[in-house]
Amino acid sequence: MKLIESVPNFSEGRREEVVRQIIEEAQKYERVKILDWSMDFDHNRSVVTLVGEPEEIETAIFDMVKKATELIDLRSHSGEHPRMGATDVIPFIPVMNTTMEECIEISKRVGERIGKELNIPVYLYEKSASSPDRENLAKIRKGEFEGFFEKIKDPKWKPDFGPDQVHPSAGVVAVGAREYLIAFNVNLGTNDIKIADKIAKAVRHISGGFRYVKAIGIELKEKGIVQVSMNLTNYKKSPIFRVFETIKREAQRYGVPVLNSEIIGMIPLKAAIETMKWYLQLDDFDEERVIENKILNTFFE
Amino acid sequence: MKLIESVPNFSEGRREEVVRQIIEEAQKYERVKILDWSMDFDHNRSVVTLVGEPEEIETAIFDMVKKATELIDLRSHSGEHPRMGATDVIPFIPVMNTTMEECIEISKRVGERIGKELNIPVYLYEKSASSPDRENLAKIRKGEFEGFFEKIKDPKWKPDFGPDQVHPSAGVVAVGAREYLIAFNVNLGTNDIKIADKIAKAVRHISGGFRYVKAIGIELKEKGIVQVSMNLTNYKKSPIFRVFETIKREAQRYGVPVLNSEIIGMIPLKAAIETMKWYLQLDDFDEERVIENKILNTFFE
Repeated sequence: MKLIESVPNFSEGRREEVVRQIIEEAQKYERVKILDWSMDFDHNRSVVTLVGEPEEIETAIFDMVKKATELIDLRSHSGEHPRMGATDVIPFIPVMNTTMEECIEISKRVGERIGKELNIPVYLYEKSASSPDRENLAKIRKGEFEGFFEKIKDPKWKPDFGPDQVHPSAGVVAVGAREYLIAFNVNLGTNDIKIADKIAKAVRHISGGFRYVKAIGIELKEKGIVQVSMNLTNYKKSPIFRVFETIKREAQRYGVPVLNSEIIGMIPLKAAIETMKWYLQLDDFDEERVIENKILNTFFE
Repeated sequence: MKLIESVPNFSEGRREEVVRQIIEEAQKYERVKILDWSMDFDHNRSVVTLVGEPEEIETAIFDMVKKATELIDLRSHSGEHPRMGATDVIPFIPVMNTTMEECIEISKRVGERIGKELNIPVYLYEKSASSPDRENLAKIRKGEFEGFFEKIKDPKWKPDFGPDQVHPSAGVVAVGAREYLIAFNVNLGTNDIKIADKIAKAVRHISGGFRYVKAIGIELKEKGIVQVSMNLTNYKKSPIFRVFETIKREAQRYGVPVLNSEIIGMIPLKAAIETMKWYLQLDDFDEERVIENKILNTFFE
């Protein structure tokens, strides 16, 4: 079985019936499943996590964008989270038996359809970006919905697909392929935030650490401890076990114990199996040898 | 989704068409999947690994036994492996969202049907055993097919189900529930078999080690190293990571490195997740947070 994940963000976090109608579009597809969805009132934004087979998820996402375009009007939208579109951003993520290349292709096909059929300007971002300037979502979104009516006139910001004019109510949308992101936090047995900061600095890319790690030190005041809070943006290349072992070693340096750690949300099976393989020194093992995964693949062979 | 595994052993390892006909009985069921099967000429025995939903696997196994009873005649069977029945032994193993109790019930229902409908004496073994004497399969099988015509007359060996007479061609069969067994080997950087023996002794139950570990030291002559070769008969109670860490520590004692390790065959997802949780010090994580597993459960909710 081939699986791709998508996590579209919609600019509606207050009217639940609107979000439900958008989700219903995806529920029509047998081989697409909603793993999770959440609304945030203050951000006035909702995030849906779905997984499915490549062809079905491609069509399901388009149907959701179409519905969001009908139901959300950015002219009357306000919220804390920056946004530029009724559907604000659509990432595609390879999860199982699929490659980044397939996700890039899907993002381009969906983007083209959104541009043509819904008349919404589309910007390809991350791995799908047509230039390095467009890799970073925040850079594309700068100026937001209101600012885009001017921004789009700049030849540098000509959309990858769709018209050269902002959609009056639905704005513009970013579509792209990216790696699976793991949110991973490590709790330290100290209340000294300086130590969490130093360790975050040691492991994060920007200050000389691992290529695909973003990290900050934060205080958990009610617990009286500090935490190294991370996003692992490519668990295949900067794996969770190597980052964790480095943090443990750095904490030792300060005479501080690692109390425990936490993974927020879900992970792909591969991330768990690679962790087990490394610690148990297994040279020859892979996901195909996990019974549940074999079953999943066998039921859909 | 609920999943139970079964690994029936049939006394036929030479005529492939016979084994295929037995397997075909299980393939009729949509929610039963053959994960693996193998034939051994010298043992004259075949082993089939199947996984499925409780109701379907129960019926599928009965159909396989019925077919094996038609096609295998123990009066003309010889092979290196001890055997007492055309279908020799049928274990049921809880794999996902199922309990040992459910497997015990299934083993009893299947056993009763085999006794009644096929006129084969049935012995419940392992967790299903009706007395401690019958927990150990080797004890039940002692005397084999040929010896059972006398053995069955002993009131101590009255079958749990079926007639008090051995089936003339199909013999008798053992049916029972057991835990998933993980075959786990650790390779040491020495050719001194005494060290592998000592470490095997340190971890195995019989000589004072972990309750659910069987272990021996063996030589891998072509590689010039030795190995601690193990069966973990209950990975939930004597977990793989604890056994591995103990072996590493014992090896250190002798100044010998652990080169690598290997898992033979498949493992349940839970075994991998528990390993990851322990090494990463994750207090709050379970299989439900692995995307592929969530998908499997969602597709069959």
